[in-house]
Amino acid sequence: MIRTMAVVGTGLIGTSVALAAGRHGVAVHLMDRDPAAARTAAALGAGTVGAPAEAVDLAVIAVPPSMVGAVLAEQQLRGLARAYTDVASVKSAPGRDVLSAIADPATFIGGHPLAGRERAGPLAARADLFEGRTWVLTPTAATARPVLNRALEMICLCGAVPVMMDSQAHDDAVALTSHAPHVVASLMAARLRGGAEEAFRLAGQGLRDTTRVAGGDPRLWTDILRANSGPLVGVLRDLHEDLSLVLASLDVLSRSGPGQGARETGRVRDLLDRGSQGLGLLREQPPGGARLRVAVEEAPGELARLLAVLDESGVTADDVSASWDQDTLTAEFAAPATAAGPLLRRLGAEGWTAGYADLATDSEVGALR
Amino acid sequence: MIRTMAVVGTGLIGTSVALAAGRHGVAVHLMDRDPAAARTAAALGAGTVGAPAEAVDLAVIAVPPSMVGAVLAEQQLRGLARAYTDVASVKSAPGRDVLSAIADPATFIGGHPLAGRERAGPLAARADLFEGRTWVLTPTAATARPVLNRALEMICLCGAVPVMMDSQAHDDAVALTSHAPHVVASLMAARLRGGAEEAFRLAGQGLRDTTRVAGGDPRLWTDILRANSGPLVGVLRDLHEDLSLVLASLDVLSRSGPGQGARETGRVRDLLDRGSQGLGLLREQPPGGARLRVAVEEAPGELARLLAVLDESGVTADDVSASWDQDTLTAEFAAPATAAGPLLRRLGAEGWTAGYADLATDSEVGALR
Repeated sequence: MIRTMAVVGTGLIGTSVALAAGRHGVAVHLMDRDPAAARTAAALGAGTVGAPAEAVDLAVIAVPPSMVGAVLAEQQLRGLARAYTDVASVKSAPGRDVLSAIADPATFIGGHPLAGRERAGPLAARADLFEGRTWVLTPTAATARPVLNRALEMICLCGAVPVMMDSQAHDDAVALTSHAPHVVASLMAARLRGGAEEAFRLAGQGLRDTTRVAGGDPRLWTDILRANSGPLVGVLRDLHEDLSLVLASLDVLSRSGPGQGARETGRVRDLLDRGSQGLGLLREQPPGGARLRVAVEEAPGELARLLAVLDESGVTADDVSASWDQDTLTAEFAAPATAAGPLLRRLGAEGWTAGYADLATDSEVGALR
Repeated sequence: MIRTMAVVGTGLIGTSVALAAGRHGVAVHLMDRDPAAARTAAALGAGTVGAPAEAVDLAVIAVPPSMVGAVLAEQQLRGLARAYTDVASVKSAPGRDVLSAIADPATFIGGHPLAGRERAGPLAARADLFEGRTWVLTPTAATARPVLNRALEMICLCGAVPVMMDSQAHDDAVALTSHAPHVVASLMAARLRGGAEEAFRLAGQGLRDTTRVAGGDPRLWTDILRANSGPLVGVLRDLHEDLSLVLASLDVLSRSGPGQGARETGRVRDLLDRGSQGLGLLREQPPGGARLRVAVEEAPGELARLLAVLDESGVTADDVSASWDQDTLTAEFAAPATAAGPLLRRLGAEGWTAGYADLATDSEVGALR
């Protein structure tokens, strides 16, 4: 069981880990090369400032990727802890540094919590930052079992969900899901510097969402992108190719009349189609849901009445599709597996004809109600 | 006063306008070249299907940009309404079509509600879609005053905020704030098609936000991007240049050892800095706020106690900065103008030393409490 912990680097992540662990009674020692950062974390109630008198159960090295190797080597030399983990968002390159720099790789296990905010520093920290989030661990053949278990325990104290991965697979994954989006958001946000003041009145949620992550600390993110430049280049090269093609196509279209530029229009459409498909993969429903269908008679507001019932039952109307046959509209939608049964019973009780979409006959639908 | 209205094109926007107007007692006629779409809108309670027997007060042409000119000309010929507006997100090119196609430009005023969802079609419509949103109008010298006023009334029925703009300024603005973000989101989302299944476990809110708008209807968006290709090319060309430079820099860095590649690292950092600055412009506080500061004694959890008070008072702790001087931390943050006074009084009553940050002396701070 973890009773004592050291957090080296009391920024957003380190301080949040300390707050979460402290909530469970762990005594946390806060260390940072900037004393003001450690003192601020302590003022937040994250622990006490300074190195512990004797080795702690677990040390969390919460420094930027390029510094993990050096900081870890230094702390292992002084015997800070019996087990060590880091939180860097790049695992392969720092992993190599670490393994070459330290005497005993058995006491280290790489870690990466998939959580963050646009704001850096201890003041942005929250005890619940990791609640329900994925926390990747990248053990090697050398990692000692008790070290792995100590890391798993710390992840549970933080309320996160541990996932074991090979470090290279992790780096490829975050290049796609985190680092490339950061570059893309920054590219778009950088364009706003030239925007007319009037233009900002037309800024909506779409622009805000697309650029949000560009608010991350530029110094830290330069370090992250650099550390994972290999996998990131692979993603950005394909993206650059798409952009070149779309830009050339739009350029032609801007000088074409109506009815011209069919090939270029097709290329723009192709990108949007592929984007829509990619987003579909990201949004895929968790398995186990059921598709339901409901018959709606043609009458003003009748469909709105159905949507209201779905809404009250917690089924979002966003995936409802409608098809007409004579005077009857069939509404079809996905419902979570646990919600489908009660919803069908309620719809039946309120006079709707409803059933599972993949059952063919009315009698079967009737039998289910 | 608007008593009767026609909506031509019962997709997301048209049906939402109809629902909002219907809520205020306006009789709405729903027309669509796809009869199923108009019937679905009617089933939602948006109005009655089919053209009106006599001219209505206002017709809203809610079709894709490339079709506005033709549909408007056709409806004016048949005398559908006394005033016409559209909702296309590109105003200059369709405006030109419109003015060349119709006999009487006096009865038309271009419009563009800054609202939307990733989902298209009448089923995604909501009566409150435009609540509090900006709705641009682009009157020309030819636009008759009563036509302008009818459009203003319709915008108010929808709960939106009208903004008058020159059509070219509008198109430049949306190229930056809406169309380029759409391309960028699609470029990123398209990359997900090649993602390993494991990678999606690491997908967080950042990726979801960055790609969200790529869920828009590809056919409609191809039309929009094409219609505004001129201004859009200007934005994307600069973005392409940035991406080329960053990609080349990361490529060099991926083959460099520690301590190498200072110039390339600087270029990556420069993009992230500019992105952060651009985002700052977008997020700029509304004017009239006050900066406050509070002295916090060094004691475990003391800062957390302050943040809890701020939180209860509705002041987000996200903008708090901290600076240490001996054993005292000074927390500084922005508060809305209306919240500053009561908050200072509460902080004073609970024993904190608090005041306005731009006042220099303690006596002045004390006087304010």
